[in-house]
Amino acid sequence: MQRNRFLPDILTTLFDRKRATGNDTDPRDINQLCNALLAEEGSVSGQKLAEVILARYRGLDDDEKLAFFQFLNDALDIDAEKLAELASTYAQTRALDDFEQLANASAAKRRKLLRRLNQPTGATADLVSMRVDLLRLMKSHPDLGRTDIDFALLLRSWFNLGFLVLKQIDWMAPASLLDKIVAYEAVHEIDDLDDLRRRLSPPDRRCFAFFHPAMPDEPLIFVEVALSDHIPGSVDDVLSEGREPLLPEQATAAVFYSISNCQQGLKGISFGNLLIKQVARQLSLELPHLTHLVTLSPIPRLNTWLTSQLDNPDFGHIAADILEGTAPAEDVRALAARYLLEAKGASGAPVDPVARFHLGNGAEAYDVHANADSSANGRAQSSGAMVNYLYDLTQIERNHEDFALRGKIAASRALKALAKAPFKSKPKELAS
Amino acid sequence: MQRNRFLPDILTTLFDRKRATGNDTDPRDINQLCNALLAEEGSVSGQKLAEVILARYRGLDDDEKLAFFQFLNDALDIDAEKLAELASTYAQTRALDDFEQLANASAAKRRKLLRRLNQPTGATADLVSMRVDLLRLMKSHPDLGRTDIDFALLLRSWFNLGFLVLKQIDWMAPASLLDKIVAYEAVHEIDDLDDLRRRLSPPDRRCFAFFHPAMPDEPLIFVEVALSDHIPGSVDDVLSEGREPLLPEQATAAVFYSISNCQQGLKGISFGNLLIKQVARQLSLELPHLTHLVTLSPIPRLNTWLTSQLDNPDFGHIAADILEGTAPAEDVRALAARYLLEAKGASGAPVDPVARFHLGNGAEAYDVHANADSSANGRAQSSGAMVNYLYDLTQIERNHEDFALRGKIAASRALKALAKAPFKSKPKELAS
Amino acid sequence: MQRNRFLPDILTTLFDRKRATGNDTDPRDINQLCNALLAEEGSVSGQKLAEVILARYRGLDDDEKLAFFQFLNDALDIDAEKLAELASTYAQTRALDDFEQLANASAAKRRKLLRRLNQPTGATADLVSMRVDLLRLMKSHPDLGRTDIDFALLLRSWFNLGFLVLKQIDWMAPASLLDKIVAYEAVHEIDDLDDLRRRLSPPDRRCFAFFHPAMPDEPLIFVEVALSDHIPGSVDDVLSEGREPLLPEQATAAVFYSISNCQQGLKGISFGNLLIKQVARQLSLELPHLTHLVTLSPIPRLNTWLTSQLDNPDFGHIAADILEGTAPAEDVRALAARYLLEAKGASGAPVDPVARFHLGNGAEAYDVHANADSSANGRAQSSGAMVNYLYDLTQIERNHEDFALRGKIAASRALKALAKAPFKSKPKELAS
Amino acid sequence: MQRNRFLPDILTTLFDRKRATGNDTDPRDINQLCNALLAEEGSVSGQKLAEVILARYRGLDDDEKLAFFQFLNDALDIDAEKLAELASTYAQTRALDDFEQLANASAAKRRKLLRRLNQPTGATADLVSMRVDLLRLMKSHPDLGRTDIDFALLLRSWFNLGFLVLKQIDWMAPASLLDKIVAYEAVHEIDDLDDLRRRLSPPDRRCFAFFHPAMPDEPLIFVEVALSDHIPGSVDDVLSEGREPLLPEQATAAVFYSISNCQQGLKGISFGNLLIKQVARQLSLELPHLTHLVTLSPIPRLNTWLTSQLDNPDFGHIAADILEGTAPAEDVRALAARYLLEAKGASGAPVDPVARFHLGNGAEAYDVHANADSSANGRAQSSGAMVNYLYDLTQIERNHEDFALRGKIAASRALKALAKAPFKSKPKELAS
Repeated sequence: MQRNRFLPDILTTLFDRKRATGNDTDPRDINQLCNALLAEEGSVSGQKLAEVILARYRGLDDDEKLAFFQFLNDALDIDAEKLAELASTYAQTRALDDFEQLANASAAKRRKLLRRLNQPTGATADLVSMRVDLLRLMKSHPDLGRTDIDFALLLRSWFNLGFLVLKQIDWMAPASLLDKIVAYEAVHEIDDLDDLRRRLSPPDRRCFAFFHPAMPDEPLIFVEVALSDHIPGSVDDVLSEGREPLLPEQATAAVFYSISNCQQGLKGISFGNLLIKQVARQLSLELPHLTHLVTLSPIPRLNTWLTSQLDNPDFGHIAADILEGTAPAEDVRALAARYLLEAKGASGAPVDPVARFHLGNGAEAYDVHANADSSANGRAQSSGAMVNYLYDLTQIERNHEDFALRGKIAASRALKALAKAPFKSKPKELAS
Repeated sequence: MQRNRFLPDILTTLFDRKRATGNDTDPRDINQLCNALLAEEGSVSGQKLAEVILARYRGLDDDEKLAFFQFLNDALDIDAEKLAELASTYAQTRALDDFEQLANASAAKRRKLLRRLNQPTGATADLVSMRVDLLRLMKSHPDLGRTDIDFALLLRSWFNLGFLVLKQIDWMAPASLLDKIVAYEAVHEIDDLDDLRRRLSPPDRRCFAFFHPAMPDEPLIFVEVALSDHIPGSVDDVLSEGREPLLPEQATAAVFYSISNCQQGLKGISFGNLLIKQVARQLSLELPHLTHLVTLSPIPRLNTWLTSQLDNPDFGHIAADILEGTAPAEDVRALAARYLLEAKGASGAPVDPVARFHLGNGAEAYDVHANADSSANGRAQSSGAMVNYLYDLTQIERNHEDFALRGKIAASRALKALAKAPFKSKPKELAS
Repeated sequence: MQRNRFLPDILTTLFDRKRATGNDTDPRDINQLCNALLAEEGSVSGQKLAEVILARYRGLDDDEKLAFFQFLNDALDIDAEKLAELASTYAQTRALDDFEQLANASAAKRRKLLRRLNQPTGATADLVSMRVDLLRLMKSHPDLGRTDIDFALLLRSWFNLGFLVLKQIDWMAPASLLDKIVAYEAVHEIDDLDDLRRRLSPPDRRCFAFFHPAMPDEPLIFVEVALSDHIPGSVDDVLSEGREPLLPEQATAAVFYSISNCQQGLKGISFGNLLIKQVARQLSLELPHLTHLVTLSPIPRLNTWLTSQLDNPDFGHIAADILEGTAPAEDVRALAARYLLEAKGASGAPVDPVARFHLGNGAEAYDVHANADSSANGRAQSSGAMVNYLYDLTQIERNHEDFALRGKIAASRALKALAKAPFKSKPKELAS
Repeated sequence: MQRNRFLPDILTTLFDRKRATGNDTDPRDINQLCNALLAEEGSVSGQKLAEVILARYRGLDDDEKLAFFQFLNDALDIDAEKLAELASTYAQTRALDDFEQLANASAAKRRKLLRRLNQPTGATADLVSMRVDLLRLMKSHPDLGRTDIDFALLLRSWFNLGFLVLKQIDWMAPASLLDKIVAYEAVHEIDDLDDLRRRLSPPDRRCFAFFHPAMPDEPLIFVEVALSDHIPGSVDDVLSEGREPLLPEQATAAVFYSISNCQQGLKGISFGNLLIKQVARQLSLELPHLTHLVTLSPIPRLNTWLTSQLDNPDFGHIAADILEGTAPAEDVRALAARYLLEAKGASGAPVDPVARFHLGNGAEAYDVHANADSSANGRAQSSGAMVNYLYDLTQIERNHEDFALRGKIAASRALKALAKAPFKSKPKELAS
């Protein structure tokens, strides 16, 4: 099974639909070309037009790109008047013909354009890159958000979960792919390939990624997993250079210690939930003696919250000590537990985004650790604290439902106790 | 293991998202399950729900399927009143928020449902099969056409030309795939694998197919090609058992003698144009001495038209002779040429569907042949006549444009002359 | 997953060492070329010389081939006088230099020639074909056996068990490979691919073959396996068209019902033993609930032996009835059991070659069946009787040792009892 | 190439013959096990015995290994008396039976043992490693050379040129394989994977290696190639970090700048000649506009020779200047040319081993360069000078023959002139 991992792709396009090369002598400008592509019935010259437009786009500077997006946003916007009319008609008639006209009018022209642009080999990746530009330009031109809505709808359809391909990535993977893992790692930075070797090569390490068939060289998201004989309380241990690797058969826990989204251009299209569950299922099959599938996750908003609690009569002094790095580990754990279980925003959801993600997936808040991430980033965001979320495949649906419908956070008994525990440090005035 | 080194096999999900097995104990009925899938935020239980729904569907009888489609058609129809309102609002405000609401309301709920059903492995093929059922049931329930519009829109997005993969199919292909080629051949029937061997194994034969990554075992469309040292005037010659194969280097013509669509469920989504052009390009690269890329095509409506022309004063007697099988070959060719170039429908397009397809692709009507297809079907539809359409890659765009915009049919000088030529047979009364 | 089995071989020579084409203008005859290849130090022109010689050989008629083999046999024979001398010297000195000279002189020049011929791509297959010719010509020229000894030694080294590759062959295999399975099946004839489909496609059928990396298109030996919920007593049942296939999980027995050697040119190099054991091990891993791995084997010499026993006072009448097809099944079984366990040749080994093969492999004679093979061949060789040999992986080494060293035949208790059982039919005179 | 698409991946044993694990409870010692393996007829327990022996061997220390090799060397030596007798008999009779006995007796028992050890998966690599040990121990126990002769004969048969597989290695190759390229590079050291990226990733770089199917993870030999628009005179240029890569279409020269043997255990079995020629042929096909296939090679013995020439009346002073690093480039080139063309050993062959290799392959000494390799090693062995050997595929056979048979060195006109040219520097006394 494993050994089939990097086999040649039997369905790879044998014969690439060639990309437009230097000989683009079309006198029309990019907007005119887009209109031509929209007018084109059938695909006779559509593919070639798409190639030319995508090649032109790659050569644009930011001002020109902005103009192009504004063209999409305004000239190729939806014909809302007509749509309103057709919808009213259909609301009355419920007739097939009326529905057909309505369906055809219900999307902006730019959506049709984007779909037609996606014909040449490699076009999907081009369109994902185009959205990266769009998201950047939207910061100063928020009205382009209308165009982004169409981008997002289309990409969500193309990057449908049913089309994703899970692949294990190990030290047998092509070096060119590994270069991308190094570049995309977002949680615990990787220096270079030799650093990556430590995360992929030992027998107690795993990495899995999702790919899309139209972008076979580009991982969409990947997760790094450590097999362990205990639930580790520190990413420093997990990544330490000197450690003795474990035999996979000896592992009792699989620790998801890093999840990285790779494609900015797919913002808002979520793969993490499915990735974790598929990997969890796969590891459970491969290593049936695993008893715990847990994350080792950062707590990105802990320090922000602590800062907001400095005046809290119950634990403001603890928060201060933690922020100063002088709190005992027990107090760090206790207050972090309280934060995870109790700090909620206006909507009633936890303020911590990572907590929202995992709890929303149906995981259980399982344990917290002090001094778990000594990196600069780890200290800055959570004073070095980290958290394990537990994925119990038999419970995730119920947990998810409780969380989504009733706002109930699944947590281990120990963590709940910790959140109620008295602090070790006394308030300073009392202590003196 | 080590040995399977280079390149992710991106089309193989390593670890299949397992299909729902027998243990479906969910008490809800299929409509309730669909509502649950629609309500489900995120994909926590969505994939499992989709598996259950698809498995349930596979077990339905036709009455139940009809009920299911009626549920999609009515209960999950578009909220047209709301859409009309949102469209009117946006027409006035052009505001981002209003556009977002409009975009979200602009598709029927069933479309969202179908998209969410497409999560488990194999779901795409299930949905394509589902549409086969729908098209069948639509014959007696035409109002289901509204649901089919959403199916078609979604499938068109998923089967975007940019996602198709061209593969050459030869005698090294898996037997299980070749079984499908035998089954799907729509033009010149193939008896069994031993019959197929004659079309794939000789060095002067080629076959190419498009695949979609989500249905890797299912060809979408395929074309059979004969390499030849002349432009053949008879498919009987092309398929004859005793013929001596040519070395590819000796070929001057590539003859596309059979194109078959494989998936009824993808009706209305056209792949043929792109397939022909990609194969033409590929063959031109591989065999640079090829001078002619032609089809050898049926003329499906010829006899129907001849029958309608029996009273035609100019050539009614010729038409009669052809239908009776007594006309000389020259007259068959002359009248077939006239049919191809002049017989047009109300819209001004040729009445022959195969002619519309190839001329619309930018091909040129090149030559016609009598006694070219002696099969029962060939005699019944065109009295054995066939036609070559020529794909000249340097002309197809211009031809296409002339045809699409100006209704002009590209034809060889010889064919034009033939369509003007006097008939050999004299009218019977004159002849006597 | 299945679909990965016949992926392109990533270690296939990327760039074929091209075979000699028509432009062989070398004025030397084949013997001179062989001498040149022997004289050639290093491989500068060796590979090209080898190509030319192999191409020349392919063009020879039988008389010329005979002359070529006689050249190998005589002109390139071992220099026995020199070898005797060198051996005597080394026997006295045990010196390194003397050993080196001895080692270099210890093989006939033809062996060196054959090794040097094996340089171009495809040469191994050519040499195997060459031996097919040699074996044929040896029938009338037995002295060529000396050359065959060198062929056999070299091929045994190249086809070392460590180099063999086991592959499962199913209906996903390339049609071109399946054509060879049809052609090579030696036990129960296969009509065509459609007939083969019945042996490969159902879920309760398996086929495995050994390949050698230098002949990737050519199976060396293959075995066909039926999964069953009982130990079948008839190959007619196994091959019957109408049968309902079993789910693999329901099988308790794996039945090896046909083993075919594919390469005449590898005569005397045995792969069957290893094949059966590897397949047995593989099936045991895949289907752990299998309890019996058995063959369903022919008894090729039974009728010959029965004929020789017609005067046997104890069971001559039974033998006669069996040969006439009038014996009850019980008597067929009883006498066949007696044959298998007791009919031995001068060397003390069983006279039945299939029995010698399986018992020598460590299998146990398990059961015999009457009316098990109704084919013409089955009736002619064994009056339709067949036998199951049981491969019990925990016993094969002991069985083998008992058989090889002590001539003891492993047999089930039931079969032993059967061989001792009284016959049902009375002698005819008594019966009357 | 097309036709390899669906070929069986014959290099992947689907089901590995498992290696002996910890549970080796056999009471016999390794020598007894070897005797048992030799006694074993057929392969019933042979494969398992081989596994146990190889596993035992891996656990031996050097003293035990020495004892094991001495056992092979003495106890399993050839029976020379018997061989002498059989050879004498055959010399007289020329009888088939006598030849057969002779053939069976003509190899030492250890050779049969080694062949039988080569049954389990991975055994070939084990035996190659075993020879590494043997070669090391031979330094202090030269009599073990007899055993090495049998190792070498067997490995030469197994690593027959016809079994080698050429593969291109680029940045898509598995990182685990690239690690080996880093480790095995013998000519111009590679620091790490990031350093290797510069040699594999640019479009004007190539690397090719030979593999053997039984050791698919282990390159046997590899060559690094730089595409260039001129014949480079310095490896520093070739490897420089800052250089601008060339498009392959612009290259006129392919420069083989590093060839490394990877397997010490295959000492004496030469792959380099065939590798260079296959790569040369492949590059000529891929890039038909290449006009020069050259090496950029070290001159390992130049400084040694210069030192020996210090008293030479004609150019002793030049030699001294070169060694001191004060000679002008012209003089370095002139004297290096003289060395290459004229410095010959007792046998008449060039004293330089790299020269012997390339000239023996049929290459032509083409040009020499001063200041071409500024590495410590380059300065130490050749005062920084390097040489281009030219592979002209139309000349290599003639060059080889001239060199092998007549001792004639092929050299460019320019190089010959250089070797005759007067030196620029005058002798020091004259200069003063």
